[in-house]
Amino acid sequence: MHRIAQIGAGRMGAVHLANAARNPRLEVVWLVDPRPDAQAIAASAGARIASVDQVLADASIEGVVVASSTDTHLALVKACLAAGKAVFCEKPLDLSLASVLAAEPELGHPKTPLFVAFNRHFDPQVRGLRAKIAAGEIGDLETLQVISHDPAPPPANFIPTSGGLFKDFAIHDLDMACWLMPDPIIEVFAWASCLVDPAIAKAGDVDTARTLLRDARGRLCSISNTRRSGCGYDQRVEAFGSTGMASAGDLVTDSVQVWREAGPQTAPRHKDFISRYAKAYSAEIDHFADMLAGAAQPETGYADSVRSLRLAEAAAHSVAIGAPVRLQGT
Amino acid sequence: MHRIAQIGAGRMGAVHLANAARNPRLEVVWLVDPRPDAQAIAASAGARIASVDQVLADASIEGVVVASSTDTHLALVKACLAAGKAVFCEKPLDLSLASVLAAEPELGHPKTPLFVAFNRHFDPQVRGLRAKIAAGEIGDLETLQVISHDPAPPPANFIPTSGGLFKDFAIHDLDMACWLMPDPIIEVFAWASCLVDPAIAKAGDVDTARTLLRDARGRLCSISNTRRSGCGYDQRVEAFGSTGMASAGDLVTDSVQVWREAGPQTAPRHKDFISRYAKAYSAEIDHFADMLAGAAQPETGYADSVRSLRLAEAAAHSVAIGAPVRLQGT
Amino acid sequence: MHRIAQIGAGRMGAVHLANAARNPRLEVVWLVDPRPDAQAIAASAGARIASVDQVLADASIEGVVVASSTDTHLALVKACLAAGKAVFCEKPLDLSLASVLAAEPELGHPKTPLFVAFNRHFDPQVRGLRAKIAAGEIGDLETLQVISHDPAPPPANFIPTSGGLFKDFAIHDLDMACWLMPDPIIEVFAWASCLVDPAIAKAGDVDTARTLLRDARGRLCSISNTRRSGCGYDQRVEAFGSTGMASAGDLVTDSVQVWREAGPQTAPRHKDFISRYAKAYSAEIDHFADMLAGAAQPETGYADSVRSLRLAEAAAHSVAIGAPVRLQGT
Amino acid sequence: MHRIAQIGAGRMGAVHLANAARNPRLEVVWLVDPRPDAQAIAASAGARIASVDQVLADASIEGVVVASSTDTHLALVKACLAAGKAVFCEKPLDLSLASVLAAEPELGHPKTPLFVAFNRHFDPQVRGLRAKIAAGEIGDLETLQVISHDPAPPPANFIPTSGGLFKDFAIHDLDMACWLMPDPIIEVFAWASCLVDPAIAKAGDVDTARTLLRDARGRLCSISNTRRSGCGYDQRVEAFGSTGMASAGDLVTDSVQVWREAGPQTAPRHKDFISRYAKAYSAEIDHFADMLAGAAQPETGYADSVRSLRLAEAAAHSVAIGAPVRLQGT
Repeated sequence: MHRIAQIGAGRMGAVHLANAARNPRLEVVWLVDPRPDAQAIAASAGARIASVDQVLADASIEGVVVASSTDTHLALVKACLAAGKAVFCEKPLDLSLASVLAAEPELGHPKTPLFVAFNRHFDPQVRGLRAKIAAGEIGDLETLQVISHDPAPPPANFIPTSGGLFKDFAIHDLDMACWLMPDPIIEVFAWASCLVDPAIAKAGDVDTARTLLRDARGRLCSISNTRRSGCGYDQRVEAFGSTGMASAGDLVTDSVQVWREAGPQTAPRHKDFISRYAKAYSAEIDHFADMLAGAAQPETGYADSVRSLRLAEAAAHSVAIGAPVRLQGT
Repeated sequence: MHRIAQIGAGRMGAVHLANAARNPRLEVVWLVDPRPDAQAIAASAGARIASVDQVLADASIEGVVVASSTDTHLALVKACLAAGKAVFCEKPLDLSLASVLAAEPELGHPKTPLFVAFNRHFDPQVRGLRAKIAAGEIGDLETLQVISHDPAPPPANFIPTSGGLFKDFAIHDLDMACWLMPDPIIEVFAWASCLVDPAIAKAGDVDTARTLLRDARGRLCSISNTRRSGCGYDQRVEAFGSTGMASAGDLVTDSVQVWREAGPQTAPRHKDFISRYAKAYSAEIDHFADMLAGAAQPETGYADSVRSLRLAEAAAHSVAIGAPVRLQGT
Repeated sequence: MHRIAQIGAGRMGAVHLANAARNPRLEVVWLVDPRPDAQAIAASAGARIASVDQVLADASIEGVVVASSTDTHLALVKACLAAGKAVFCEKPLDLSLASVLAAEPELGHPKTPLFVAFNRHFDPQVRGLRAKIAAGEIGDLETLQVISHDPAPPPANFIPTSGGLFKDFAIHDLDMACWLMPDPIIEVFAWASCLVDPAIAKAGDVDTARTLLRDARGRLCSISNTRRSGCGYDQRVEAFGSTGMASAGDLVTDSVQVWREAGPQTAPRHKDFISRYAKAYSAEIDHFADMLAGAAQPETGYADSVRSLRLAEAAAHSVAIGAPVRLQGT
Repeated sequence: MHRIAQIGAGRMGAVHLANAARNPRLEVVWLVDPRPDAQAIAASAGARIASVDQVLADASIEGVVVASSTDTHLALVKACLAAGKAVFCEKPLDLSLASVLAAEPELGHPKTPLFVAFNRHFDPQVRGLRAKIAAGEIGDLETLQVISHDPAPPPANFIPTSGGLFKDFAIHDLDMACWLMPDPIIEVFAWASCLVDPAIAKAGDVDTARTLLRDARGRLCSISNTRRSGCGYDQRVEAFGSTGMASAGDLVTDSVQVWREAGPQTAPRHKDFISRYAKAYSAEIDHFADMLAGAAQPETGYADSVRSLRLAEAAAHSVAIGAPVRLQGT
């Protein structure tokens, strides 16, 4: 049993905490969280409340799950690494590419593992798709098509601190595209609109976008994003290759159907990312346990954070200038 | 162009007439039908009205489509064969097995082709399934599962002349089972109820049944019939073999889907046999054209009629006695 | 945390033990099992090894999971109930209806809960189907169609102690049919063959069956069983009603597809009951925790055991005599 | 019966000729085509060979199907309209927008119907999708996603006369997008590559593209094109609205499935546009018969030709300049 601590027990924090508590290889010793009911939350995982300093000072703690608010990630990750802890950081490291790049000395090649959790890499559907591509089942990959639609927009007051559609939401798709495509992306083009909620426009953001990516070979990727699908959490990828296509489809909640005169009614998609990516989140924690056991290096980390953030900023910039944006250094 | 005549322009007759009119190898010369609007119906196919005697006397007529009421089939088929015409007879030859057996001298080995049209044999779905089985794609066939559900019951006044559920409706499934299974059926068991419409019970018939068939090797087939599905024309077959299963699924009307919170709504099944088996009916007429051209022997004929009628009578008898019925001569 | 013990850590026992260990409301204190590696297995769940007597004598133990070999179930269940423990008994209580009936005084109305775990009742697919039926979405239920095919036959040396196809395997389908149908089954008919493996016939059993059930109203159910599908664990139910149909379909392992010239290849079914019914097994343990918390009565117990065993014996008897079997007392 | 003539009996011409011959309201009197076997082709439709002048001079001819090579369309359409014939012109009117615009005096508001056949408008899938959108089933349409992939590239020697990927192939998708979206497109962006066949690049064309369209409201459409799918003719549309999504999916050839250990194999997509859009082509001819009967105005004509050609030229221009192209006059 590896002893770990967790910082932050908000929405994603609660998911990680429960998964860690159920993981037979992990023991959650400490929870750091200021909220009034933190003690009860900690107890549900068999943990107790502590301060960040206490966690850092506890030499028995091998790893820390950082799931606090985004603006605290960088500082906490640095402190944990400095204290010799392995780190599981909920994405993103930070909303500013500049800040993340400035942290390269501490985060670029840490002595203990730094795992930045991008959930798509741990989703069995996306992994299965990637395996099919890697096995050559569609020949050479030529283009990608990503549908990534949220069921419903976040509260309007979240928008100003979200980093915007591309950094907050599309970043998952940008990260996944990089993971699936064989060569680096060199150019980005995006159009975006506010069609879902005028409050989002008022907050300076967009809610609907189409983003195109291109690599040096001319391979193309298009990404469709909207903050509101009206029909559940729509998460699909299609990969088109020289000898066929492969896809990772949506998950629906069950296999029950009802047929009447009008036709069949089948099960809906999952309602949110917590249920849709439940297996991915559980696998992330298990991957962290592997790291603590010395059995794995982080599958996603600092470099992925930089890469996806750079693409997100480029996409937002493309929307602003109405033209393609070539990536620096490519 | 082969010159043909058609007798009867009721529901199925209209289907055959239109298909024959569209077939580039057939010319419908005569239609025999007493209904007031028969002349207009004939004209729509480029034909004219005639009597049966005129048709039989017209030496230029190579083939006759018999689509009149069932009780006239046997006599008309005999007369047409006697006149040297090839015959396309809508199934069944007759509702009485005894009568059909009595007609063996004339119908058993006719000099001109006698095609009794069992539509399942010409349905691309069932043919495709049979081809998969024949190609060994599921190893040795072991059991069959047939779903054959009508969308809605026929008018109650049709029931007394229908021959009953087994001869009128299940006969298609019995015929198909014989066609798909490698060895002869030796025993039949059936349970049936009246759950759909009490008027059917009052007319002495049943509307819901489960029929089991067995061959000497122990292979099994089950057939589900109901006169009313509430969800379109449900026509499916599953074949289970030693190395897998193959199935012929329902056809739906289109590929349009609508997804909302509750899940997707996809297209309904076909509403009746005329649209569901449209390709089969068209292929039947084309098969008849092949016969007239000397390019084919009837795929289904007298022997299939006897075999399926025998099974239908056995199933009805099983219901009556509440026990399995062993087939005579097996 | 409710303190429990478990007896037996074989194939199903391992599943229950892991689920209990992960359940936040249960603490597995003791494991009773004679196998050499029992101590390691116990440790994986945070438990220690004990004898049955020690378990019964430990007043702090509220419940016992009985997952030992079938022939020990009845005696262990009686002992646990006598000791005032709540019992989770892996099905079946016993392979002999007579023995189960003889245990009625102790098991019929126990003071502490007796939960006999029939997994279909806890499968989200079957529960979802039942809820649709109960909500009237298909009108009045008229007939049921059950497909229940194992991926591959058990080892031949298991057959003689299995109780035979109907008690060992079809019993799940018989139980489910009773649960889904609104009125009691009054009559059973079955045909069975040995098509999969001659060793099964040599052991006196069959491997392929079609079973029909009938209630007093004339509602019908057909069940298809085979010991070997060649295509994964095939577990489907279709319910046909007066206004439509509802079904619980197979679960496949993922949503990944590969399309090539020949068409799409999609994911296979689950390979065994452990993965196919993983959620059901987990829900069973959670249901047991509810009982220990006083929040639930067993959804399935002694009466369900009697009912399904009676049907299984009737089906086997029907095969033996080649005729329908009317249930006693109906 | 309306008497018509047809000019051109190539690949599409053969489709239209057969459909016209089968249409009960049309009589194909003349075929104009120089190929050696033209007489036999004409005879298969019950027609005879004539020159263009003979057709124009035959006052009994009400309509002409123009299916000759694209470079002859404009002149023939003008001549037919001048002779008072209704015209069915296979798309496109011409490969040059300038030439089409120059023909506005004769073609813009002709006295007899000018039907330019865009097959998507007559495909039951696309029509069904459009009807769902029009019925408000997905609320307000916000974005569109079009997949339009050819099974295999055309012969390399066709490329130089094809007009290029956008005018030859994507034009169908551009036309459909305009038909489905509520407001005019005001801006186009496209990236394109040559990934399929270097011979296509050598001929100055591309074979793979992603095109984005935008209207004044900010609604977006993305189109995916490739000359080679490796998996049949992939033709899908997804429409995302404020309350859900609707889609028109691919058609597969049949409903037969084979399941083995690896999972199910289901039927492939259609292999080419002739079988995929068979119903659309038949409906086009029927629509023409409606026009001749005075019962319909052309659903697609000159204005649609101009609109889609303008978009195709804008998309190609966007590729050339690497920037979005704003449409003139918008």
